[in-house]
Amino acid sequence: MRLRNKPWAEEFINAHPEIIIQNPEQYKGKWKEVFQNDQPLHIEVGTGKGQFVLGMAKANPHINYIGIELYDSVIVCALEKIVEADAPSNLRLLKVNGADLNKYFEKNDVSRVYLNFSDPWPKTRHAKRRLTHEGFLKIYESILIDRGEVHFKTDNRGLFEYSLVSISEYGMLLKYVSLDLHANMPEDNIMTEYEEKFSAKGQPIYRLEAQFIKE
Amino acid sequence: MRLRNKPWAEEFINAHPEIIIQNPEQYKGKWKEVFQNDQPLHIEVGTGKGQFVLGMAKANPHINYIGIELYDSVIVCALEKIVEADAPSNLRLLKVNGADLNKYFEKNDVSRVYLNFSDPWPKTRHAKRRLTHEGFLKIYESILIDRGEVHFKTDNRGLFEYSLVSISEYGMLLKYVSLDLHANMPEDNIMTEYEEKFSAKGQPIYRLEAQFIKE
Ligand SMILES: C[S@@+](CC[C@H](N)C(=O)[O-])C[C@H]1O[C@@H](n2cnc3c(N)ncnc32)[C@H](O)[C@@H]1O
Ligand SMILES: C[S@@+](CC[C@H](N)C(=O)[O-])C[C@H]1O[C@@H](n2cnc3c(N)ncnc32)[C@H](O)[C@@H]1O
Repeated sequence: MRLRNKPWAEEFINAHPEIIIQNPEQYKGKWKEVFQNDQPLHIEVGTGKGQFVLGMAKANPHINYIGIELYDSVIVCALEKIVEADAPSNLRLLKVNGADLNKYFEKNDVSRVYLNFSDPWPKTRHAKRRLTHEGFLKIYESILIDRGEVHFKTDNRGLFEYSLVSISEYGMLLKYVSLDLHANMPEDNIMTEYEEKFSAKGQPIYRLEAQFIKE
Repeated sequence: MRLRNKPWAEEFINAHPEIIIQNPEQYKGKWKEVFQNDQPLHIEVGTGKGQFVLGMAKANPHINYIGIELYDSVIVCALEKIVEADAPSNLRLLKVNGADLNKYFEKNDVSRVYLNFSDPWPKTRHAKRRLTHEGFLKIYESILIDRGEVHFKTDNRGLFEYSLVSISEYGMLLKYVSLDLHANMPEDNIMTEYEEKFSAKGQPIYRLEAQFIKE
Protein backbone atom coordinates (compact mmCIF):
# COMPACT_ATOMS: atom_id res chain seq x y z
CA MET A 1 0.00 0.00 0.00
CA ARG A 2 1.92 2.99 -1.26
CA LEU A 3 0.88 6.63 -1.17
CA ARG A 4 0.09 6.79 -4.88
CA ASN A 5 -2.83 4.44 -4.25
CA LYS A 6 -4.11 6.56 -1.40
CA PRO A 7 -4.71 10.16 -2.38
CA TRP A 8 -6.77 10.56 0.79
CA ALA A 9 -3.85 9.53 3.04
CA GLU A 10 -2.31 12.99 3.44
CA GLU A 11 -5.68 14.54 4.06
CA PHE A 12 -6.62 11.94 6.67
CA ILE A 13 -3.24 12.39 8.39
CA ASN A 14 -3.62 16.17 8.47
CA ALA A 15 -7.12 15.78 9.90
CA HIS A 16 -5.75 13.95 12.99
CA PRO A 17 -3.09 16.13 14.60
CA GLU A 18 -4.26 14.83 18.01
CA ILE A 19 -2.83 11.41 17.04
CA ILE A 20 -0.10 12.06 14.46
CA ILE A 21 2.13 14.65 16.05
CA GLN A 22 2.85 17.76 13.96
CA ASN A 23 6.19 19.60 14.28
CA PRO A 24 7.62 17.11 16.77
CA GLU A 25 10.82 19.19 17.17
CA GLN A 26 8.93 21.41 19.58
CA TYR A 27 8.50 18.55 22.09
CA LYS A 28 12.15 17.56 22.38
CA GLY A 29 12.73 17.19 26.12
CA LYS A 30 9.04 18.04 26.75
CA TRP A 31 7.08 14.96 25.76
CA LYS A 32 5.24 15.10 29.08
CA GLU A 33 3.38 18.12 27.61
CA VAL A 34 1.97 15.93 24.87
CA PHE A 35 0.70 13.21 27.19
CA GLN A 36 -0.07 15.56 30.09
CA ASN A 37 1.46 13.09 32.55
CA ASP A 38 4.74 11.72 33.91
CA GLN A 39 4.50 8.17 32.59
CA PRO A 40 7.49 6.47 30.98
CA LEU A 41 7.61 6.69 27.19
CA HIS A 42 8.18 3.62 24.98
CA ILE A 43 8.62 4.06 21.24
CA GLU A 44 8.39 1.60 18.37
CA VAL A 45 10.59 2.33 15.36
CA GLY A 46 9.07 0.99 12.13
CA THR A 47 5.53 0.65 13.44
CA GLY A 48 3.98 -0.37 10.13
CA LYS A 49 0.21 -0.70 10.42
CA GLY A 50 0.21 -0.18 14.17
CA GLN A 51 -1.27 -3.37 15.59
CA PHE A 52 1.55 -3.83 18.12
CA VAL A 53 1.74 -0.30 19.45
CA LEU A 54 -2.05 -0.06 19.71
CA GLY A 55 -2.25 -3.39 21.53
CA MET A 56 0.53 -2.34 23.90
CA ALA A 57 -1.11 1.03 24.62
CA LYS A 58 -4.39 -0.67 25.48
CA ALA A 59 -2.71 -3.35 27.61
CA ASN A 60 -0.43 -0.91 29.49
CA PRO A 61 -2.30 2.32 30.25
CA HIS A 62 0.46 3.47 32.63
CA ILE A 63 2.99 3.70 29.84
CA ASN A 64 2.99 6.20 26.98
CA TYR A 65 3.65 4.95 23.45
CA ILE A 66 4.74 6.53 20.20
CA GLY A 67 4.70 4.54 16.98
CA ILE A 68 7.23 5.84 14.47
CA GLU A 69 6.85 5.09 10.78
CA LEU A 70 8.50 6.52 7.68
CA TYR A 71 5.72 6.20 5.11
CA ASP A 72 2.41 8.06 4.79
CA SER A 73 0.93 5.10 2.97
CA VAL A 74 1.68 2.78 5.91
CA ILE A 75 1.17 5.06 8.90
CA VAL A 76 -2.28 5.94 7.60
CA CYS A 77 -3.34 2.33 8.27
CA ALA A 78 -2.09 2.66 11.86
CA LEU A 79 -4.00 5.92 12.15
CA GLU A 80 -7.22 4.30 10.93
CA LYS A 81 -6.86 1.49 13.49
CA ILE A 82 -6.25 3.95 16.30
CA VAL A 83 -9.20 6.15 15.35
CA GLU A 84 -11.43 3.07 15.22
CA ALA A 85 -10.15 2.07 18.68
CA ASP A 86 -11.15 5.47 20.09
CA ALA A 87 -7.56 6.67 20.27
CA PRO A 88 -6.18 5.66 23.68
CA SER A 89 -4.82 8.79 25.37
CA ASN A 90 -1.39 7.19 25.95
CA LEU A 91 -0.68 6.63 22.24
CA ARG A 92 0.65 8.85 19.46
CA LEU A 93 2.15 8.36 16.00
CA LEU A 94 5.11 10.12 14.46
CA LYS A 95 5.84 10.14 10.74
CA VAL A 96 9.62 10.52 10.74
CA ASN A 97 12.76 8.58 9.90
CA GLY A 98 14.24 6.55 12.76
CA ALA A 99 17.64 7.86 11.67
CA ASP A 100 16.54 11.35 12.79
CA LEU A 101 15.26 10.40 16.24
CA ASN A 102 17.60 12.78 18.03
CA LYS A 103 16.00 15.73 16.28
CA TYR A 104 12.84 14.96 18.26
CA PHE A 105 14.04 13.31 21.45
CA GLU A 106 16.83 14.04 23.89
CA LYS A 107 18.59 11.98 26.56
CA ASN A 108 16.08 10.52 29.08
CA ASP A 109 13.00 11.25 26.93
CA VAL A 110 12.51 7.54 26.17
CA SER A 111 12.53 4.47 28.44
CA ARG A 112 12.37 1.69 25.88
CA VAL A 113 12.73 1.17 22.12
CA TYR A 114 10.76 -1.57 20.35
CA LEU A 115 11.83 -2.91 16.97
CA ASN A 116 9.51 -5.42 15.31
CA PHE A 117 10.20 -7.25 12.08
CA SER A 118 12.49 -4.49 10.90
CA ASP A 119 13.52 -4.51 7.25
CA PRO A 120 16.40 -7.01 7.00
CA TRP A 121 18.62 -5.24 4.42
CA PRO A 122 20.44 -8.52 3.73
CA LYS A 123 23.20 -7.06 1.56
CA THR A 124 26.36 -6.21 3.48
CA ARG A 125 26.61 -2.84 1.76
CA HIS A 126 23.22 -1.93 3.24
CA ALA A 127 24.15 -2.97 6.80
CA LYS A 128 24.02 0.65 7.99
CA ARG A 129 20.29 0.74 7.28
CA ARG A 130 19.52 -2.12 9.66
CA LEU A 131 17.79 -0.73 12.74
CA THR A 132 20.22 -2.67 14.95
CA HIS A 133 23.32 -1.26 13.25
CA GLU A 134 25.79 0.48 15.55
CA GLY A 135 24.71 3.85 14.11
CA PHE A 136 21.10 3.28 15.21
CA LEU A 137 22.14 1.87 18.61
CA LYS A 138 24.06 5.10 19.18
CA ILE A 139 20.93 7.11 18.41
CA TYR A 140 18.76 5.00 20.74
CA GLU A 141 21.33 5.36 23.53
CA SER A 142 21.33 9.13 23.06
CA ILE A 143 17.56 9.42 23.71
CA LEU A 144 17.07 6.62 26.27
CA ILE A 145 17.33 6.75 30.04
CA ASP A 146 20.40 5.11 31.59
CA ARG A 147 20.02 1.34 31.37
CA GLY A 148 17.29 1.88 28.79
CA GLU A 149 16.28 -1.18 26.79
CA VAL A 150 15.80 -2.28 23.20
CA HIS A 151 13.27 -5.08 22.59
CA PHE A 152 13.44 -6.72 19.21
CA LYS A 153 11.34 -9.37 17.44
CA THR A 154 11.84 -10.77 13.96
CA ASP A 155 11.39 -13.84 11.82
CA ASN A 156 14.53 -12.98 9.86
CA ARG A 157 17.37 -15.28 10.88
CA GLY A 158 20.12 -13.28 9.21
CA LEU A 159 19.01 -10.04 10.79
CA PHE A 160 18.71 -11.65 14.21
CA GLU A 161 22.19 -13.22 13.99
CA TYR A 162 23.58 -9.86 12.91
CA SER A 163 21.75 -8.05 15.71
CA LEU A 164 23.03 -10.35 18.48
CA VAL A 165 26.61 -9.62 17.41
CA SER A 166 26.03 -5.91 16.76
CA ILE A 167 24.39 -5.46 20.18
CA SER A 168 27.20 -7.36 21.92
CA GLU A 169 29.92 -5.44 20.07
CA TYR A 170 28.24 -2.19 21.07
CA GLY A 171 28.75 -3.22 24.68
CA MET A 172 25.08 -3.78 25.46
CA LEU A 173 23.88 -6.51 27.78
CA LEU A 174 21.69 -9.29 26.39
CA LYS A 175 19.07 -9.85 29.07
CA TYR A 176 16.74 -12.25 27.28
CA VAL A 177 16.79 -14.30 24.10
CA SER A 178 14.12 -16.54 22.60
CA LEU A 179 14.80 -18.47 19.41
CA ASP A 180 11.20 -19.65 19.09
CA LEU A 181 8.94 -17.20 20.83
CA HIS A 182 5.75 -19.03 19.97
CA ALA A 183 7.00 -22.34 21.37
CA ASN A 184 6.62 -20.83 24.87
CA MET A 185 4.44 -17.84 24.12
CA PRO A 186 4.69 -15.24 26.89
CA GLU A 187 1.22 -14.35 28.18
CA ASP A 188 1.75 -10.67 27.51
CA ASN A 189 3.01 -11.04 23.94
CA ILE A 190 1.27 -8.66 21.54
CA MET A 191 1.51 -9.90 17.97
CA THR A 192 2.49 -7.58 15.13
CA GLU A 193 1.04 -7.90 11.61
CA TYR A 194 4.23 -9.52 10.36
CA GLU A 195 4.38 -11.80 13.37
CA GLU A 196 0.90 -13.16 12.58
CA LYS A 197 1.85 -13.72 8.98
CA PHE A 198 5.19 -15.45 9.52
CA SER A 199 4.29 -17.49 12.57
CA ALA A 200 1.25 -18.84 10.66
CA LYS A 201 3.75 -20.21 8.13
CA GLY A 202 5.47 -22.08 10.96
CA GLN A 203 8.59 -19.95 10.93
CA PRO A 204 10.24 -19.43 14.32
CA ILE A 205 9.99 -15.93 15.75
CA TYR A 206 13.18 -14.64 17.39
CA ARG A 207 13.12 -12.16 20.24
CA LEU A 208 15.68 -10.39 22.40
CA GLU A 209 15.88 -7.79 25.11
CA ALA A 210 19.09 -5.78 25.39
CA GLN A 211 20.13 -3.06 27.79
CA PHE A 212 22.52 -0.16 27.49
CA ILE A 213 25.12 -0.21 30.24
CA LYS A 214 26.37 2.92 31.96
CA GLU A 215 30.05 3.57 31.34
CA MET B 1 27.60 -47.20 26.37
CA ARG B 2 28.43 -47.26 30.06
CA LEU B 3 31.46 -48.76 31.72
CA ARG B 4 29.59 -51.77 33.08
CA ASN B 5 29.24 -53.01 29.50
CA LYS B 6 32.91 -52.53 28.79
CA PRO B 7 35.12 -54.37 31.22
CA TRP B 8 37.98 -53.92 28.75
CA ALA B 9 37.66 -50.10 28.79
CA GLU B 10 39.92 -49.43 31.75
CA GLU B 11 42.51 -51.84 30.46
CA PHE B 12 42.48 -50.28 26.98
CA ILE B 13 42.77 -46.79 28.49
CA ASN B 14 45.70 -47.81 30.67
CA ALA B 15 47.39 -49.36 27.65
CA HIS B 16 47.49 -45.99 25.85
CA PRO B 17 49.21 -43.44 28.09
CA GLU B 18 50.67 -41.83 24.96
CA ILE B 19 47.14 -40.69 24.06
CA ILE B 20 45.19 -40.51 27.33
CA ILE B 21 47.33 -38.38 29.60
CA GLN B 22 48.12 -39.85 33.01
CA ASN B 23 48.59 -37.59 36.07
CA PRO B 24 47.79 -34.40 34.15
CA GLU B 25 48.54 -32.23 37.23
CA GLN B 26 52.22 -32.52 36.41
CA TYR B 27 51.76 -30.63 33.12
CA LYS B 28 50.05 -27.54 34.53
CA GLY B 29 51.85 -24.61 32.89
CA LYS B 30 54.01 -27.10 30.92
CA TRP B 31 51.80 -28.53 28.21
CA LYS B 32 54.47 -27.75 25.65
CA GLU B 33 56.39 -30.69 27.16
CA VAL B 34 53.62 -33.05 26.19
CA PHE B 35 53.43 -31.91 22.59
CA GLN B 36 57.12 -31.07 22.28
CA ASN B 37 56.32 -27.85 20.44
CA ASP B 38 55.08 -24.27 20.89
CA GLN B 39 51.77 -24.57 19.06
CA PRO B 40 48.59 -23.06 20.52
CA LEU B 41 46.43 -25.47 22.50
CA HIS B 42 42.70 -25.85 21.90
CA ILE B 43 40.63 -28.04 24.20
CA GLU B 44 37.18 -29.54 23.82
CA VAL B 45 35.21 -30.05 27.02
CA GLY B 46 32.76 -32.96 26.75
CA THR B 47 34.43 -34.65 23.79
CA GLY B 48 32.20 -37.70 23.75
CA LYS B 49 33.33 -40.21 21.14
CA GLY B 50 35.96 -37.88 19.73
CA GLN B 51 34.97 -37.39 16.09
CA PHE B 52 35.25 -33.58 16.31
CA VAL B 53 38.56 -33.34 18.08
CA LEU B 54 40.12 -35.99 15.84
CA GLY B 55 38.83 -34.25 12.71
CA MET B 56 40.12 -30.90 13.94
CA ALA B 57 43.54 -32.34 14.80
CA LYS B 58 43.89 -33.83 11.33
CA ALA B 59 42.67 -30.65 9.61
CA ASN B 60 44.84 -28.29 11.68
CA PRO B 61 48.26 -29.83 12.27
CA HIS B 62 49.64 -26.51 13.58
CA ILE B 63 47.32 -26.51 16.56
CA ASN B 64 47.43 -28.89 19.50
CA TYR B 65 44.19 -30.43 20.75
CA ILE B 66 43.05 -32.08 23.96
CA GLY B 67 39.67 -33.77 24.16
CA ILE B 68 38.30 -33.81 27.70
CA GLU B 69 35.67 -36.32 28.72
CA LEU B 70 34.31 -37.42 32.07
CA TYR B 71 33.41 -41.04 31.41
CA ASP B 72 35.64 -44.06 30.78
CA SER B 73 32.85 -45.69 28.82
CA VAL B 74 32.70 -42.77 26.38
CA ILE B 75 36.31 -41.70 26.16
CA VAL B 76 37.28 -45.25 25.27
CA CYS B 77 35.39 -44.82 21.98
CA ALA B 78 37.38 -41.66 21.27
CA LEU B 79 40.55 -43.56 22.09
CA GLU B 80 39.66 -46.35 19.68
CA LYS B 81 39.05 -43.85 16.87
CA ILE B 82 42.33 -42.10 17.52
CA VAL B 83 44.30 -45.34 17.62
CA GLU B 84 42.69 -46.41 14.34
CA ALA B 85 43.64 -43.03 12.84
CA ASP B 86 47.31 -43.57 13.77
CA ALA B 87 47.14 -41.07 16.63
CA PRO B 88 48.00 -37.63 15.20
CA SER B 89 50.89 -36.21 17.24
CA ASN B 90 48.96 -32.98 18.01
CA LEU B 91 46.10 -34.75 19.81
CA ARG B 92 45.61 -36.04 23.35
CA LEU B 93 42.70 -37.06 25.56
CA LEU B 94 42.11 -36.27 29.19
CA LYS B 95 39.66 -38.14 31.40
CA VAL B 96 38.72 -35.46 33.91
CA ASN B 97 35.80 -33.29 34.94
CA GLY B 98 35.54 -29.93 33.17
CA ALA B 99 34.76 -28.42 36.57
CA ASP B 100 38.35 -29.24 37.63
CA LEU B 101 40.14 -27.74 34.63
CA ASN B 102 42.20 -25.37 36.73
CA LYS B 103 43.80 -28.29 38.51
CA TYR B 104 45.45 -29.16 35.19
CA PHE B 105 45.77 -25.87 33.33
CA GLU B 106 46.90 -22.40 34.34
CA LYS B 107 46.43 -18.94 32.82
CA ASN B 108 47.67 -18.85 29.20
CA ASP B 109 47.90 -22.64 28.81
CA VAL B 110 44.89 -22.73 26.48
CA SER B 111 43.99 -20.59 23.42
CA ARG B 112 40.49 -21.80 22.75
CA VAL B 113 37.73 -23.87 24.38
CA TYR B 114 35.29 -25.87 22.26
CA LEU B 115 31.93 -27.00 23.61
CA ASN B 116 29.86 -29.24 21.38
CA PHE B 117 26.33 -30.45 22.13
CA SER B 118 26.91 -30.11 25.83
CA ASP B 119 24.40 -31.70 28.16
CA PRO B 120 21.48 -29.23 28.38
CA TRP B 121 20.53 -29.64 32.06
CA PRO B 122 17.13 -28.08 31.37
CA LYS B 123 15.99 -27.77 34.98
CA THR B 124 16.76 -24.38 36.53
CA ARG B 125 18.11 -26.02 39.68
CA HIS B 126 20.77 -27.74 37.52
CA ALA B 127 21.83 -24.53 35.75
CA LYS B 128 25.24 -24.64 37.46
CA ARG B 129 26.08 -27.85 35.62
CA ARG B 130 25.66 -26.26 32.17
CA LEU B 131 29.08 -25.83 30.59
CA THR B 132 28.21 -22.20 29.76
CA HIS B 133 27.23 -21.32 33.32
CA GLU B 134 29.10 -18.40 34.85
CA GLY B 135 31.04 -20.82 37.06
CA PHE B 136 32.45 -22.63 34.02
CA LEU B 137 33.11 -19.39 32.13
CA LYS B 138 35.21 -18.29 35.09
CA ILE B 139 37.23 -21.51 34.88
CA TYR B 140 37.77 -21.13 31.13
CA GLU B 141 38.89 -17.52 31.60
CA SER B 142 41.37 -18.62 34.24
CA ILE B 143 43.16 -21.01 31.88
CA LEU B 144 42.82 -19.13 28.57
CA ILE B 145 45.10 -16.53 27.04
CA ASP B 146 43.84 -12.92 27.08
CA ARG B 147 41.07 -12.56 24.52
CA GLY B 148 40.79 -16.33 24.43
CA GLU B 149 37.67 -17.73 22.79
CA VAL B 150 34.87 -20.19 23.48
CA HIS B 151 33.26 -21.84 20.44
CA PHE B 152 29.97 -23.57 21.07
CA LYS B 153 27.65 -25.69 18.91
CA THR B 154 24.38 -27.27 19.94
CA ASP B 155 20.99 -28.35 18.68
CA ASN B 156 19.42 -27.49 22.03
CA ARG B 157 17.43 -24.28 21.77
CA GLY B 158 17.01 -23.76 25.50
CA LEU B 159 20.70 -24.24 26.19
CA PHE B 160 21.67 -21.91 23.37
CA GLU B 161 19.28 -19.18 24.54
CA TYR B 162 20.65 -19.55 28.06
CA SER B 163 24.24 -19.46 26.82
CA LEU B 164 23.81 -16.25 24.81
CA VAL B 165 22.55 -14.48 27.92
CA SER B 166 25.06 -16.10 30.29
CA ILE B 167 27.97 -15.17 28.00
CA SER B 168 26.72 -11.60 27.64
CA GLU B 169 26.15 -11.21 31.37
CA TYR B 170 29.66 -12.47 32.02
CA GLY B 171 30.93 -9.54 29.94
CA MET B 172 32.17 -11.62 27.03
CA LEU B 173 31.93 -10.41 23.45
CA LEU B 174 29.76 -12.36 20.99
CA LYS B 175 31.81 -12.41 17.79
CA TYR B 176 29.72 -14.76 15.68
CA VAL B 177 26.29 -16.36 15.87
CA SER B 178 24.60 -18.81 13.52
CA LEU B 179 21.05 -19.98 14.17
CA ASP B 180 21.15 -22.57 11.39
CA LEU B 181 24.72 -23.61 10.80
CA HIS B 182 23.89 -26.11 8.11
CA ALA B 183 21.91 -23.58 6.06
CA ASN B 184 25.23 -21.92 5.18
CA MET B 185 27.67 -24.62 6.15
CA PRO B 186 31.16 -23.19 6.70
CA GLU B 187 33.69 -25.08 4.59
CA ASP B 188 35.83 -25.92 7.59
CA ASN B 189 32.99 -27.23 9.78
CA ILE B 190 33.84 -30.56 11.41
CA MET B 191 30.72 -32.44 12.44
CA THR B 192 30.41 -34.04 15.84
CA GLU B 193 28.53 -37.29 16.40
CA TYR B 194 25.55 -35.44 17.87
CA GLU B 195 25.64 -32.91 15.06
CA GLU B 196 25.29 -35.67 12.47
CA LYS B 197 22.41 -37.19 14.36
CA PHE B 198 20.41 -34.02 14.99
CA SER B 199 21.03 -32.28 11.68
CA ALA B 200 19.88 -35.45 9.89
CA LYS B 201 16.55 -34.99 11.68
CA GLY B 202 16.32 -31.51 10.17
CA GLN B 203 16.88 -29.67 13.46
CA PRO B 204 18.75 -26.39 13.20
CA ILE B 205 22.26 -26.38 14.65
CA TYR B 206 23.17 -23.27 16.62
CA ARG B 207 26.73 -21.99 16.87
CA LEU B 208 28.49 -19.09 18.55
CA GLU B 209 31.97 -17.73 19.07
CA ALA B 210 32.57 -15.63 22.16
CA GLN B 211 35.68 -13.88 23.41
CA PHE B 212 36.85 -12.92 26.87
CA ILE B 213 37.62 -9.22 27.11
CA LYS B 214 40.56 -7.87 29.07
CA GLU B 215 39.46 -5.71 31.97
C1 LIG C 1 8.68 -5.05 7.69
S1 LIG C 1 7.71 -3.75 8.29
C2 LIG C 1 7.18 -4.32 9.90
C3 LIG C 1 6.02 -3.56 10.43
C4 LIG C 1 5.56 -3.90 11.86
N1 LIG C 1 6.56 -3.51 12.85
C5 LIG C 1 5.24 -5.38 12.01
O1 LIG C 1 6.00 -6.08 12.73
O2 LIG C 1 4.24 -5.87 11.45
C6 LIG C 1 8.94 -2.54 8.67
C7 LIG C 1 8.39 -1.13 8.76
O3 LIG C 1 9.43 -0.26 9.22
C8 LIG C 1 9.37 0.94 8.50
N2 LIG C 1 10.71 1.53 8.54
C9 LIG C 1 11.81 1.05 7.96
N3 LIG C 1 12.86 1.85 8.20
C10 LIG C 1 12.41 2.87 8.95
C11 LIG C 1 13.02 4.02 9.51
N4 LIG C 1 14.33 4.28 9.32
N5 LIG C 1 12.25 4.86 10.23
C12 LIG C 1 10.94 4.63 10.41
N6 LIG C 1 10.31 3.55 9.91
C13 LIG C 1 11.03 2.69 9.18
C14 LIG C 1 8.91 0.53 7.12
O4 LIG C 1 8.33 1.62 6.41
C15 LIG C 1 7.91 -0.59 7.43
O5 LIG C 1 6.60 -0.09 7.57
C1 LIG D 1 25.80 -34.85 24.68
S1 LIG D 1 27.43 -35.43 24.65
C2 LIG D 1 28.15 -34.67 23.23
C3 LIG D 1 29.39 -35.34 22.78
C4 LIG D 1 30.13 -34.68 21.58
N1 LIG D 1 30.69 -33.40 22.01
C5 LIG D 1 29.25 -34.52 20.38
O1 LIG D 1 28.93 -33.34 20.05
O2 LIG D 1 28.90 -35.50 19.73
C6 LIG D 1 28.16 -34.55 26.01
C7 LIG D 1 29.40 -35.18 26.56
O3 LIG D 1 29.97 -34.31 27.52
C8 LIG D 1 30.45 -35.08 28.61
N2 LIG D 1 30.49 -34.20 29.79
C9 LIG D 1 29.43 -33.65 30.39
N3 LIG D 1 29.82 -32.89 31.43
C10 LIG D 1 31.17 -32.96 31.47
C11 LIG D 1 32.13 -32.42 32.34
N4 LIG D 1 31.78 -31.63 33.36
N5 LIG D 1 33.44 -32.68 32.09
C12 LIG D 1 33.78 -33.46 31.04
N6 LIG D 1 32.90 -34.03 30.21
C13 LIG D 1 31.60 -33.79 30.43
C14 LIG D 1 29.46 -36.21 28.71
O4 LIG D 1 30.01 -37.32 29.39
C15 LIG D 1 29.15 -36.50 27.24
O5 LIG D 1 30.03 -37.47 26.72
